Amino acid sequence: MEIIAVGSELLTPYRMDTNSLYLTEGLNRLGIEVVRKVVVGDEPGQLRDAFSEALKRVELVIAIGGLGPTQDDLTREVVAELLGRKLHRDEDILRGIEARFRRFGRNMPEVNARQAMVPEGATVLPNTAGTAPGLWMETDGRIVVLLPGPPQELKPMFEREVAPRLERRSGGVHLFTRELRVAGLPESDVEQRIAPTYTQHPEVQTTILASPGEIQIHLRAWSADAAHSEKLLDELVKRLALALGENLFTTQGESLEEVVARILNAGGATIAVAESCTGGMLAERLTSIPGSSSYFLSSAVCYSNAMKSEWAGVPAALMETKGAVSAEVARALAEGIRRSTGATLGLGVTGIAGPASGMPEKPVGTVHIALAGETETRDREFHFPGDRNRVRTQATLAALDMVRRYFLYAQARPGGQAKG
Amino acid sequence: MEIIAVGSELLTPYRMDTNSLYLTEGLNRLGIEVVRKVVVGDEPGQLRDAFSEALKRVELVIAIGGLGPTQDDLTREVVAELLGRKLHRDEDILRGIEARFRRFGRNMPEVNARQAMVPEGATVLPNTAGTAPGLWMETDGRIVVLLPGPPQELKPMFEREVAPRLERRSGGVHLFTRELRVAGLPESDVEQRIAPTYTQHPEVQTTILASPGEIQIHLRAWSADAAHSEKLLDELVKRLALALGENLFTTQGESLEEVVARILNAGGATIAVAESCTGGMLAERLTSIPGSSSYFLSSAVCYSNAMKSEWAGVPAALMETKGAVSAEVARALAEGIRRSTGATLGLGVTGIAGPASGMPEKPVGTVHIALAGETETRDREFHFPGDRNRVRTQATLAALDMVRRYFLYAQARPGGQAKG
Repeated sequence: MEIIAVGSELLTPYRMDTNSLYLTEGLNRLGIEVVRKVVVGDEPGQLRDAFSEALKRVELVIAIGGLGPTQDDLTREVVAELLGRKLHRDEDILRGIEARFRRFGRNMPEVNARQAMVPEGATVLPNTAGTAPGLWMETDGRIVVLLPGPPQELKPMFEREVAPRLERRSGGVHLFTRELRVAGLPESDVEQRIAPTYTQHPEVQTTILASPGEIQIHLRAWSADAAHSEKLLDELVKRLALALGENLFTTQGESLEEVVARILNAGGATIAVAESCTGGMLAERLTSIPGSSSYFLSSAVCYSNAMKSEWAGVPAALMETKGAVSAEVARALAEGIRRSTGATLGLGVTGIAGPASGMPEKPVGTVHIALAGETETRDREFHFPGDRNRVRTQATLAALDMVRRYFLYAQARPGGQAKG
Repeated sequence: MEIIAVGSELLTPYRMDTNSLYLTEGLNRLGIEVVRKVVVGDEPGQLRDAFSEALKRVELVIAIGGLGPTQDDLTREVVAELLGRKLHRDEDILRGIEARFRRFGRNMPEVNARQAMVPEGATVLPNTAGTAPGLWMETDGRIVVLLPGPPQELKPMFEREVAPRLERRSGGVHLFTRELRVAGLPESDVEQRIAPTYTQHPEVQTTILASPGEIQIHLRAWSADAAHSEKLLDELVKRLALALGENLFTTQGESLEEVVARILNAGGATIAVAESCTGGMLAERLTSIPGSSSYFLSSAVCYSNAMKSEWAGVPAALMETKGAVSAEVARALAEGIRRSTGATLGLGVTGIAGPASGMPEKPVGTVHIALAGETETRDREFHFPGDRNRVRTQATLAALDMVRRYFLYAQARPGGQAKG
């Protein structure tokens, strides 16, 4: 199938078509593969070309956008003309649009009457969150679906109206997926470790995606035999997990902060942070999870040395002799914040995010992270590549990963259990 | 012109073509409009269709991706075949690739030799950051350019090799742009205020884009007369600025944190934050700017009431009687953090980001923000719509905007000047 995203704003440097990701996910779930995506502006000739070319190639075309009330919005008219269908006004739709405006205490502007125009033979897909209905048309064994652009209108319409209709035609083929995520290994190492396994299974599409501090491994199998595919993927995941070892942090597509939140909650543990170069990003990730107040106590974002002393009790002399960016200061931050907040774990981060203030012996990207627990403090030194934002992101993920690994080790020790 | 982004991973729900935004920006600057973007997988038939259709419609086609060394990468071969050109091995390129591998202490894998294959008559575009050279081909008055997919390879190649060649052919038409940004007004109010002005200038494309807490207004004029266009845009910006008043925070596309950083630096002022519901996001924004240590002292990210007392001196009794989410506690946070850090300004944020823990009298989205200066403390109450992330983002931007407006007022007062 092909997706056509309509809208001149999608051809500027400022906005991109993100709807198609959502749509692809829903279509893949139904066993339907997207073979092309096109973005065109609100221009009749361009629109006509896009639809006529797509209809020559594929059986299903879904277009998003261009169903609004203004003169710019031409999708409905262009497609009706291309398919040789007259437009007529649907009085039910018109009454629905008028009622919607009345609910908000307004009269329907005359322009909105256009949204009640329906091509002959089209099935109207009700819009529960806006005025433009969707349209489903069948022609010469092909299906053309027109959906509104605003995501809050598109999504419920796809779920309620489009997915069930496609499901009935799917012929039983579905997509089965797994998502593994890895922290602490570069992409080339991940590839090297898992290639011998996944290349044995060409029937499973394996995609490795790298982002700063994290590698995702997507497994996708198209099949009509659910039991077989689920078993195949489970076995493949098991073998990949063995190859990746403790670097693997989820087999269910969770974010690292979700995994850390789950582990902290399970252990009844709390955490406090003293962070310098990450500038609040570590706290922001930890608190991005709903309900994070159960494990997150506080973060001291301390750029100045004075505040490192004041909030985390880092001795001024230590910063003087070792430098603010040092393993010793990271340890003092972690231990100090743990002590002053009473948290189960204290996390300390200090480093040089750049672009300025790097030094030959401590270049930009140098980051020290320490994790203080009840009986011991661990620290690690990192050298992250990239710009300020990449260094900060990698440092944040590395810090979260140290928390995850702490519990991994705690549980692996005979009789070991993280203290709550 | 049309952009073809090549890569099967771009047809999954996990990854999207972002290169085309960068390319669009560069092409627009040269006066070249993008009329269509296509995403296709690494599949010969699909690739061939995309190129042959594009060449029927437009004079310039730029493809990104599919030049790698593996069997998946087919762009070079498919385009050569489509244009009826034989591929030959370019020994210079081959030596360059071999040398690149040697610099990293490795031998060139045999597969990389494919990247030295060049279609007859093609101009080779050197790759300064990777192994795959780009290719520039002219055929029947059309231009086809093939560029590598990794952004760190694509960008320098576009700037050094592609832009200058296109510039020579541009015929003098260029794009002139302005970007205004607004905080503290909803999109519909922005539209209502500026529509009477911008609709008088249909020769300038005006696009209004809303994101949580911020509205962008993009003005674009295509013209061969630079002096005329610059003057027209300057006058339009002046009139829009008048309509938007103090809600306008930049006419140069700066982020709100960039503007705040500039204002704080100009006034020699420092800032410290005590934030609860924003969970570090406010500190993260303030420190995302290189050199932020000149104005940012620290943020106390205090979820627990105990830490609000400890770090910002908020009286426990106040939180008891007024509730942690209240104007009084926001003021106490702002004044307390200002006092304990010695900053010029103290910023306090407390609210309910959700999704749980809303109450009838304090629903999710309720946020109190206070800004404490030398002589006065201001506070505001907000009710932000949306999910946890949207509430946190809007609260962060509203807090930054209070800092910006503080200096606005300070400078507007007779003899007024922010204290450093």
